Amino acid sequence: MDVKAAVAFKAGQPLSIETVQLEGPKAGEVLVEMKATGICHTDAFTLSGDDPEGIFPAILGHEGAGVVVDIGPGVTSVQKGDHVIPLYTPECRQCKYCLSGKTNLCQAIRATQGRGVMPDGTSRFSIDGEPIYHYMGTSTFANYSVMPEISVAKIRKDAPFDKVCYIGCGVTTGVGAVINTAKVTPGSTVAVFGLGGIGLNVIQGARMVGADIIIGVDINPSKIPLATQFGMTHFVNPKEVSNVVEAIADITDGGVDYSFECIGNTTTMRQSLECCHKGWGESVIIGVAGAGQEICTRPFQLVTGRVWKGSAFGGARGRTDVPKIVDWYMNGKIDIDSLITHKMPLEDINKGFDLMHRGESIRTVVEF
Amino acid sequence: MDVKAAVAFKAGQPLSIETVQLEGPKAGEVLVEMKATGICHTDAFTLSGDDPEGIFPAILGHEGAGVVVDIGPGVTSVQKGDHVIPLYTPECRQCKYCLSGKTNLCQAIRATQGRGVMPDGTSRFSIDGEPIYHYMGTSTFANYSVMPEISVAKIRKDAPFDKVCYIGCGVTTGVGAVINTAKVTPGSTVAVFGLGGIGLNVIQGARMVGADIIIGVDINPSKIPLATQFGMTHFVNPKEVSNVVEAIADITDGGVDYSFECIGNTTTMRQSLECCHKGWGESVIIGVAGAGQEICTRPFQLVTGRVWKGSAFGGARGRTDVPKIVDWYMNGKIDIDSLITHKMPLEDINKGFDLMHRGESIRTVVEF
Repeated sequence: MDVKAAVAFKAGQPLSIETVQLEGPKAGEVLVEMKATGICHTDAFTLSGDDPEGIFPAILGHEGAGVVVDIGPGVTSVQKGDHVIPLYTPECRQCKYCLSGKTNLCQAIRATQGRGVMPDGTSRFSIDGEPIYHYMGTSTFANYSVMPEISVAKIRKDAPFDKVCYIGCGVTTGVGAVINTAKVTPGSTVAVFGLGGIGLNVIQGARMVGADIIIGVDINPSKIPLATQFGMTHFVNPKEVSNVVEAIADITDGGVDYSFECIGNTTTMRQSLECCHKGWGESVIIGVAGAGQEICTRPFQLVTGRVWKGSAFGGARGRTDVPKIVDWYMNGKIDIDSLITHKMPLEDINKGFDLMHRGESIRTVVEF
Repeated sequence: MDVKAAVAFKAGQPLSIETVQLEGPKAGEVLVEMKATGICHTDAFTLSGDDPEGIFPAILGHEGAGVVVDIGPGVTSVQKGDHVIPLYTPECRQCKYCLSGKTNLCQAIRATQGRGVMPDGTSRFSIDGEPIYHYMGTSTFANYSVMPEISVAKIRKDAPFDKVCYIGCGVTTGVGAVINTAKVTPGSTVAVFGLGGIGLNVIQGARMVGADIIIGVDINPSKIPLATQFGMTHFVNPKEVSNVVEAIADITDGGVDYSFECIGNTTTMRQSLECCHKGWGESVIIGVAGAGQEICTRPFQLVTGRVWKGSAFGGARGRTDVPKIVDWYMNGKIDIDSLITHKMPLEDINKGFDLMHRGESIRTVVEF
C-alpha cells in the first residue's frame, strides 16, 4: 500500500515528505494507522548524524499513537480496531530480560531493531523497490507503519491520540524513572536537573507519588512557572549559586533522597549524584551523554551510601505499564496537555524540528 | 588505671609498647578489657601517615573483642561481665541515619570520633598527663579501652575472643556487603575482585546465601585453594585473559548479578561495574581508593541497568547485626578460623604489621 511518510534520506538533511510503499504485516506483526506522533530529541539526534547507530534512508519517529488496522498470522494480543502506542522498547514476556522481573530492557528483537528491519531481517518500507529502513522498531513519521506485536501497547479507546502519543516516550521516561527506577516514596526530597520535557515529567511523577520537596535545577529561569505548575517546590539556578550541590544540601538538610539527571551532561550527572544524601540518596541518569563521554566521582561518594543508577524508557515494561500511564492521564493524575506546545500536519514536520532546536517548544505533535 | 598499649606516636614509625593511663568510663561510656584484636589494613593506612584524618599520638586498633568491666552513669544496654565487640561504626538508634532504616552510618558521635576523643570532647588515655588520642572510637591495641555504650555490640559468652574479634571489621565488611548492601539472592552469579581477607569473606557470604556462581578475580593464583575452600567456583587471573570483563561475561552468559570490589583500585572498580549483567547487575565498592582518586565509566553502563553502590562496615548496624554474625560463626555457617593465620602477644604487634605488608598473613590476631 502507499503511505505518506517523512523520510530521512541522509544525515543532516531535512526530512522529505514522500509517498512510500508499505508491505502488510507478516507473522507476529501488526499494521498501525498512525494518528499522531511527537517529535523527540532522539529523532533529531539520529537525523543529525551523531547517532553512531543511525541508518539511512529511514523513516524516523518513535512517539506515536494509532489504531491497529491489520494483523499478521499468529498475532493474538491485539486485533483490528485496537488503539495502541508503539513501543521502541518491546515487551516479549519470554526473554531472559523480561523474565528476570528486574528490567524493562527486553532483548527479543534488539539485533534486528538496531539494524532498522523487522525480526525477519527485512524492511516493510520501500520507494521504487529500494528498501527504506525502520527506526527504533516504530517509524511513527508515516501515516501507516508495521511493527512487531510485542512492540505495541494496547490502550483505552477514549484516550486522545494527540496527547497520549507523548506517553510513547517522554512522559513514560520521566514518570517511569520516578516510579519504576528510583521508586520514590511519599515524603521524599527530590532534585531534577534540567527542566525540559523529561524533567517536567519527572517532577509530576514525584508529585504524584507524594514527594515533599521537589527541587528543579536549570540555568533558564523562564522554566520556573511551568515547572512550578507541575510540582516543583524549589528552584536552583546554577548561574546564581556558587555551588549547586551545596545549595541543594542547604534546602534538604544534607542532600536529596533521589535525584534525576535529565540533560545528558556528564558534569550535571556528577552533581546529581553528589547532591544526594549520605547514607541513602539515589541518583538516576536519564539524559543521554555524547558519544565517548564519561562520568566520574570519588568512590567515597558511593562507599558512604549514595547509589548511582540509570533509567531507559522510565524502566517501564511497555505493554504492561504504558496503559496504566494512559489511565493516569485520563484520570487527571498527570498533565500532558500543558506540555504539548505545538501541533502541525506531517507536511510541516521540519518546522517542528526547528522549534525544538530553538528551544521554543516542549513537545510538538504531528497529527495525520 | 595503668594499661598496656601499643602507641602510635608518629606517622611512619613502629608502634611502641607503653604503660599508659586510662580514666574510667564517664556517662554513657563503658570500660572494656580487651581479650583479642585483629590487625587490619586500615590501622596500617593511618599509621603510614597517608590517612588525612590520622591524629597522633594515638592508640590504634578497631577489630577487637573483650569483656565489659565497668560502666559509666546512665549505661543501660550492657553491664559488667558482658562480652562485647567494639564498633567503629556505632549504632545509637536515635539519629536521623539510624532512624532512616536505610543506612548503618550512624552519625551520633562522628565529629568527636573523627577527632580522636570521646563524645565529651576529651580523651581517656594519657601518658604523664599528656593526652593520647582514641582511634575510630575503639583503640583496641590496649588491654583496656573506654568507648561509648553505643559503640559496643553485646555478643554471646561462648564465642572465642581470638576468632570473633575479626567480626569487628573484616568478616562483617565482607559478609555484610553481600547480605545488607547487595542483598544477594539464591542462584545469583557473583564476581569478587581481590581475594584478600575482605574478598574471602564476600565469597563465604555469597555461598551462605546460595549464590550459584562465585568468580574470584586476582593476579595471584596462590589464592585459589583458600578461595575455593570458601566457596569460589571460578577463578579469573587478569594476567591470563585479554579482558577481565569479557572473561566474566563468558562464564555468566553476559555478566554477573552482583560484583564486589575488595581492593581499593579505581581500575578494578570500573571493571567490577562493567562486568555486571545489563539490565540488573549491581556492583558494590568495598575497597578504599587512594586520596583524590576517581572512578569513571560511560553513563551508558548505568542507563542500561547496571547499578553502582558502595558499602562501609558491610552495611551492618553493629549492635543489631554483629551478634547475628557471631551466631553464624558459632553455628558453622561461616568460617573464621581458616582466616586467622597468625597469633601473637601485644609485644610483637609490629611483626603483625610486617606480615601484613609482606602479604604473608590473612589476619594476625593479637591476644592480651
